[in-house]
Amino acid sequence: MSDTSAKDYSVPALGKRKIPSPIIMSTEDGDMVANYVNDEEKILYHIEGVVGEHQQVCFDPHELLEKAGPREKIYFNPKHVHAAIVTCGGLCPGLNNVIRAVVRCLWYRYGITRITGIQNGYRGFLPETGFEPLELDPEIVDDIQTKGGTILKSARGGGNRVEEIADAIERMNISMLFAVGGDGTQRGALEVAEELERRKLNISIIGIPKTIDNDFSFIQRSFGFDTAVTEAVKAVSAAHTEAHDTINGIGLVKVMGRESGFIAAHTALAMSDVNFCLIPESPFDLDGGNGLFIHLKRRLADRNHAVILVAEGAGENLTSETGKTDLSGNKSLEDIGSVLKRRIKEYFEKDGMEVNIKYIDPSYMIRSAAANPNDSIYCSRLGANAVHAAVAGKTKTLISMVHDNFVHVPMRVAVSKRRHVDIEGSLWRDVLENTRQPMSMKNQVYIKDK
Amino acid sequence: MSDTSAKDYSVPALGKRKIPSPIIMSTEDGDMVANYVNDEEKILYHIEGVVGEHQQVCFDPHELLEKAGPREKIYFNPKHVHAAIVTCGGLCPGLNNVIRAVVRCLWYRYGITRITGIQNGYRGFLPETGFEPLELDPEIVDDIQTKGGTILKSARGGGNRVEEIADAIERMNISMLFAVGGDGTQRGALEVAEELERRKLNISIIGIPKTIDNDFSFIQRSFGFDTAVTEAVKAVSAAHTEAHDTINGIGLVKVMGRESGFIAAHTALAMSDVNFCLIPESPFDLDGGNGLFIHLKRRLADRNHAVILVAEGAGENLTSETGKTDLSGNKSLEDIGSVLKRRIKEYFEKDGMEVNIKYIDPSYMIRSAAANPNDSIYCSRLGANAVHAAVAGKTKTLISMVHDNFVHVPMRVAVSKRRHVDIEGSLWRDVLENTRQPMSMKNQVYIKDK
Amino acid sequence: MSDTSAKDYSVPALGKRKIPSPIIMSTEDGDMVANYVNDEEKILYHIEGVVGEHQQVCFDPHELLEKAGPREKIYFNPKHVHAAIVTCGGLCPGLNNVIRAVVRCLWYRYGITRITGIQNGYRGFLPETGFEPLELDPEIVDDIQTKGGTILKSARGGGNRVEEIADAIERMNISMLFAVGGDGTQRGALEVAEELERRKLNISIIGIPKTIDNDFSFIQRSFGFDTAVTEAVKAVSAAHTEAHDTINGIGLVKVMGRESGFIAAHTALAMSDVNFCLIPESPFDLDGGNGLFIHLKRRLADRNHAVILVAEGAGENLTSETGKTDLSGNKSLEDIGSVLKRRIKEYFEKDGMEVNIKYIDPSYMIRSAAANPNDSIYCSRLGANAVHAAVAGKTKTLISMVHDNFVHVPMRVAVSKRRHVDIEGSLWRDVLENTRQPMSMKNQVYIKDK
Amino acid sequence: MSDTSAKDYSVPALGKRKIPSPIIMSTEDGDMVANYVNDEEKILYHIEGVVGEHQQVCFDPHELLEKAGPREKIYFNPKHVHAAIVTCGGLCPGLNNVIRAVVRCLWYRYGITRITGIQNGYRGFLPETGFEPLELDPEIVDDIQTKGGTILKSARGGGNRVEEIADAIERMNISMLFAVGGDGTQRGALEVAEELERRKLNISIIGIPKTIDNDFSFIQRSFGFDTAVTEAVKAVSAAHTEAHDTINGIGLVKVMGRESGFIAAHTALAMSDVNFCLIPESPFDLDGGNGLFIHLKRRLADRNHAVILVAEGAGENLTSETGKTDLSGNKSLEDIGSVLKRRIKEYFEKDGMEVNIKYIDPSYMIRSAAANPNDSIYCSRLGANAVHAAVAGKTKTLISMVHDNFVHVPMRVAVSKRRHVDIEGSLWRDVLENTRQPMSMKNQVYIKDK
Repeated sequence: MSDTSAKDYSVPALGKRKIPSPIIMSTEDGDMVANYVNDEEKILYHIEGVVGEHQQVCFDPHELLEKAGPREKIYFNPKHVHAAIVTCGGLCPGLNNVIRAVVRCLWYRYGITRITGIQNGYRGFLPETGFEPLELDPEIVDDIQTKGGTILKSARGGGNRVEEIADAIERMNISMLFAVGGDGTQRGALEVAEELERRKLNISIIGIPKTIDNDFSFIQRSFGFDTAVTEAVKAVSAAHTEAHDTINGIGLVKVMGRESGFIAAHTALAMSDVNFCLIPESPFDLDGGNGLFIHLKRRLADRNHAVILVAEGAGENLTSETGKTDLSGNKSLEDIGSVLKRRIKEYFEKDGMEVNIKYIDPSYMIRSAAANPNDSIYCSRLGANAVHAAVAGKTKTLISMVHDNFVHVPMRVAVSKRRHVDIEGSLWRDVLENTRQPMSMKNQVYIKDK
Repeated sequence: MSDTSAKDYSVPALGKRKIPSPIIMSTEDGDMVANYVNDEEKILYHIEGVVGEHQQVCFDPHELLEKAGPREKIYFNPKHVHAAIVTCGGLCPGLNNVIRAVVRCLWYRYGITRITGIQNGYRGFLPETGFEPLELDPEIVDDIQTKGGTILKSARGGGNRVEEIADAIERMNISMLFAVGGDGTQRGALEVAEELERRKLNISIIGIPKTIDNDFSFIQRSFGFDTAVTEAVKAVSAAHTEAHDTINGIGLVKVMGRESGFIAAHTALAMSDVNFCLIPESPFDLDGGNGLFIHLKRRLADRNHAVILVAEGAGENLTSETGKTDLSGNKSLEDIGSVLKRRIKEYFEKDGMEVNIKYIDPSYMIRSAAANPNDSIYCSRLGANAVHAAVAGKTKTLISMVHDNFVHVPMRVAVSKRRHVDIEGSLWRDVLENTRQPMSMKNQVYIKDK
Repeated sequence: MSDTSAKDYSVPALGKRKIPSPIIMSTEDGDMVANYVNDEEKILYHIEGVVGEHQQVCFDPHELLEKAGPREKIYFNPKHVHAAIVTCGGLCPGLNNVIRAVVRCLWYRYGITRITGIQNGYRGFLPETGFEPLELDPEIVDDIQTKGGTILKSARGGGNRVEEIADAIERMNISMLFAVGGDGTQRGALEVAEELERRKLNISIIGIPKTIDNDFSFIQRSFGFDTAVTEAVKAVSAAHTEAHDTINGIGLVKVMGRESGFIAAHTALAMSDVNFCLIPESPFDLDGGNGLFIHLKRRLADRNHAVILVAEGAGENLTSETGKTDLSGNKSLEDIGSVLKRRIKEYFEKDGMEVNIKYIDPSYMIRSAAANPNDSIYCSRLGANAVHAAVAGKTKTLISMVHDNFVHVPMRVAVSKRRHVDIEGSLWRDVLENTRQPMSMKNQVYIKDK
Repeated sequence: MSDTSAKDYSVPALGKRKIPSPIIMSTEDGDMVANYVNDEEKILYHIEGVVGEHQQVCFDPHELLEKAGPREKIYFNPKHVHAAIVTCGGLCPGLNNVIRAVVRCLWYRYGITRITGIQNGYRGFLPETGFEPLELDPEIVDDIQTKGGTILKSARGGGNRVEEIADAIERMNISMLFAVGGDGTQRGALEVAEELERRKLNISIIGIPKTIDNDFSFIQRSFGFDTAVTEAVKAVSAAHTEAHDTINGIGLVKVMGRESGFIAAHTALAMSDVNFCLIPESPFDLDGGNGLFIHLKRRLADRNHAVILVAEGAGENLTSETGKTDLSGNKSLEDIGSVLKRRIKEYFEKDGMEVNIKYIDPSYMIRSAAANPNDSIYCSRLGANAVHAAVAGKTKTLISMVHDNFVHVPMRVAVSKRRHVDIEGSLWRDVLENTRQPMSMKNQVYIKDK
């Protein structure tokens, strides 16, 4: 399936580790003391296979991910470390939890007390912005996990100004940087790390992957995703009530998911109020004998109400028609929710059928929510493992959870592709079973003859 | 590590499957149609290993679990099926979600419309109780997932009356039974299945494992567990406020966890308000130079408040001293929370130090909560997969989630051992880092010389 | 102050009450048995006055409202009653609670078992719609209070077809109608009642006032209002996080309030995250030396973020400029939130200042929420008191809460004027203190010389 | 009814007000500027009366309460003011909101920047405790309203050490003290104020009444009460699920309410899950033909489950039997919840009937909750009005809300009696209608012949 070979998964490191960790643990089983993790502990990435009666072929034993955790020997002398953390891109539940976990692990476990928060994403490194860095300590982060957002503020942009960021890191004498952000942020972090290497600077760059859409490869579940689904469920529930309790009510909810429909798919599974779940991976038509409109009309005839949940990147063919571009030359897309609302209205007006359509866009309420306990637990472990990786001298590495294990994933590997909902797989299958929507709403259905 | 051999994981089945499934899916990749699952699709159970520089030893390719999901051919003719479902033991978030998913999948996907709910657990099978079975359909279960509890009611006991249960199943002409319950329930289900086999009856018995303590082997996370942690966090948060905002406040919270401290461990990780997390797996003393009291006293001297989170099965040595037994001869244990409250009070009274201790037992509020979205999604998929297994003729099998895949686990294997918090592993390590409590509070510490 | 004379407040009734109530209560104090209410029990409406040193002028003892509650003698014979209930207009938290309270009080307290729910508002009375009435009983309404919306569905319109509604009431042989709805609904109910009077029919028409905006006169707090504020607070909190945690963030939230800004005012008081609260009662300019823009710019310069909360009817001068009219000839107004978002963007673009504006419209999530406990209590008492009024033969009367007492208010009086936020009074004063916004953002400020 | 005469309600003040308020407002209506309040603005306290056909007797125009709010002239020069605030007794939702409102109003409205928080209640005044006062400013209180508890910590006791408190106030040169607490706290505050008067010190003592039980006279609703009911509803809902979903389940919930059953009564009204609501004001028997047991047994026979909600002070006859006294000589009462649980168990064991009783005590989770929006609004206005009263030179005065108006109530009057649920009034009547419990469960029923 995957053409990445075994060596791809090896984790870059700054150099030989010689310093004993200040964390006292054990290297043996059975002594009832927590154990260090060593670099030879791995977990298998691909764990699915087909095992026939006669043959027994399956798992590629080369696809091994290194387990995260505290090492017995570390690379950095805690006394000399200056650690920095930056949060980039849009808000996502759990950012404060990650910041807090990083600060607390640095401070309490390793005695690292020089910790700087860079404000407003990578732009905080750029001198002309005048964004002052914050000094961080356990007192400052004491209670921040109860809030959404990020105390470091977050912003897009700046990640392409690699040299200036490297300059700032060098000037501030930073020894390790925790970069919390998405795909673009991690690509930026990788380039900065390479620039620092060129400058012969031994600086650890550790990525903490953030994507509310849950579309990172090599990551079982991104932090904030569970909270996002929890919040999205509330909007769907409201849409259901609005749709159900009037004449031919249609509730329409838009959630995040520019390229991958994970939030929409999970939200649809959570409550079964959704009748049509529209995601980028499954294209659909509006008109025609198998389009959304005709199915929607049937649903209203049957049950008098309907709920549509649409991911922001779904129906690209419907929104890209504007032909406009934004300043950077990217196509500027219309809001799919507004398009659907307008088109549905027009359709039923022409049809002479009264419908009452209520459109809810809960995106900002989702993004800014405080992490729920599940994400909170996850973030607190993610942050601690990021610190263990950095002090051990790992670099150009993401901290990730795979098959319920915290692991190290080389940035180069992780940013190579995006994860999508497999529309032939079990998640989407279960969504279809729940919504009872057609397997496809394209007019040419891709069902092969049976 | 494990001495179970490959054949242990093979899933019992009633016979050859000849009937085409009424669910239309695909057997090929790339056609954008959801795929059937076939029995040869497996996932690896043990995925952790140590890979040295020279050697490359690790994963036992025999430990394979069969993937759950809809099969192309099924065993039962849906027209003739009488399906039954029973919920046993104490309440747990998600029971109604599971019931609903089972009913909806039977009805909508397979066209099975004869569905019976057995009331009050196994006791609903016993004629003398007079508990009438309920007829179930999608209408009845339409909205039940928004409520905690179980519409079938639940009760302990009756599981040992194997012959009478088999009699009832035979008399009611049940073709498949979904048994939702814990360890004991699944043992009972296995015995009933074996009794039915002896009677040459082709009846599928599918277990849906329920344990709010999350202590089942072969199950990554039991349903309701995440909700339980979410609710427990609220109690800890209250205890923290009560402790923090008075003179030498001590907040004491008891959560479920008779033999395994998973709820306590996760709850402690979620908010970092917990200073002492006490679980069955990590014995502790009260008195002595390394006992809880002295550490608690130090904490109060330092910070003026403390929060203790105790799993109900922790400190067994402290509660078993009563020497009483209940009617069945089991040792009746005092409530560990009450014991701790009393002993702490006594200790500080003797010490002449004013403390204000507030004890919260949120157990019933946790058990009866409605499933949160995460558990709701899980239960809806668990129930559907249980139905797919039953109609395919699987039996004596649990539906489980392992490494984020739904799988079939033979009951015999699953009930063979209980899962515990590994106090040398990463979860407990992260708890210790968060609470900053001593690695052990036994007076003889098990730390080896280094 | 008020020119309505004492006789205005007298409550219309159908006739003499001769039937003893089936509810057994007491007419005497001191026997520890709950008391009947008699028609002579009143509460004073205007309770504020100015009492100088020498004079003692104040309260008009003629403005007396009749207390609601069960009467010793009733008008209708419960055996022959056919009660009906209808919910009109947009959704509002608490509708199901009111329905439930009415049904339960009719059934359990008076033994009235013929209860009909009219569907989709007044349109449910019109034969051509084909909306079937629902039979209601305690079983059906058992658990509906946990849900938002209304099991009777709600719709606008139909209220002006007075004769047809009266025909339907006559045809269905309805003896009492509970009309739950706003200003328009109550005007419609009054006209229907008058039409029924002309037909010499003794039918009680009782209004239960519904206005999520809380803008009914003679009603201390309308049901659903507290829940609405509770939900609005969540949106403001999200807007605050989004605004605070980025560069020059502006959070903009729109809430209901077409003519009265009560929701906005209360929401602003609840959390103090709001910096500019804009309501219909206090006109404002955008441009100019005292306009919103300049104040917003100053706020951003000071604090780098701002939260604006706008009631939908605020800034009428800004939205009415479109000049369009809808089909019924009403001016169609642009959405004030969208207007503000666009204008603010334009202003700062022209200014060359980067701002990040996030607009949240939580209206449907607010309207469809389930009643919180406070509203739930209120609705359950409101519904019961409506029933007591109807069986006692009151008609053309609203049930209301004034100064924490449930009272009868003649419809004629209640619909005569709308309630507004008094911008010289204590509520708005406290809002201004909380937001610390200018007393006025009109360029000609109405401050007199001092 | 009441024998307090008109002069009772006059509000004590320190002296003549000469300083113009720094708050710019208006004294005229119609200028669209918020108005000052002057001392002659009053509201009527008793507003209920009986108005017969011939006579027209009713309202005592002497019972007038002074309206709270900012005065045009003030007593204290803000530059010289040292304000202090103290929170006493058990936790109650809203304490932080009150603290925050006081600090913000002092600082932002009056420019008073010397503000001290006394820690741990009155004990913070006593030198031997060593509890350091906190300096307060808007930064410190910025976000505290999102948390339960009190940043000043709270404790019982110390209130009787009047002279030492007065010494401390004198020594610290405090000009105004805001005392947040219950009955005892306000009595203490009054004595301290009198002691300060004897010392000829012009110090304003303003009380902010705190009683989670809502049992203060002259206060429509105490802060935190609505939040308390909201939290109590959750426990009742859990008890209902536990009771409903098993064999003869009995859910038992205890809530606060030592002498007054307001929390229990309101909670019972909120959800209708309660079948027996037991409050101090309505004595009941367990045994006998009209006792709780026989009614409970009937309920179980009918419906198989029951929910009992008991206020902590109910059934005093059942708990006072222990005969023990605590150190101060007060009778130490058993926990009524535990007593009921034990007695009910015994009753049904003797009876040979299986029951499953689940007892929930949510008290600490209720007390420590963060204020909900309704209470949050209330507290923010209460705190601001307390400041307006103090700077105007009022003293020995409570800030209260009566008939939805903020008013001044002389401490002497307010502490003179406690408020109880009137078991012949409308609140308790509505509870009885909702629970459908017997009007009395005493064996000698007080029903007069009819």
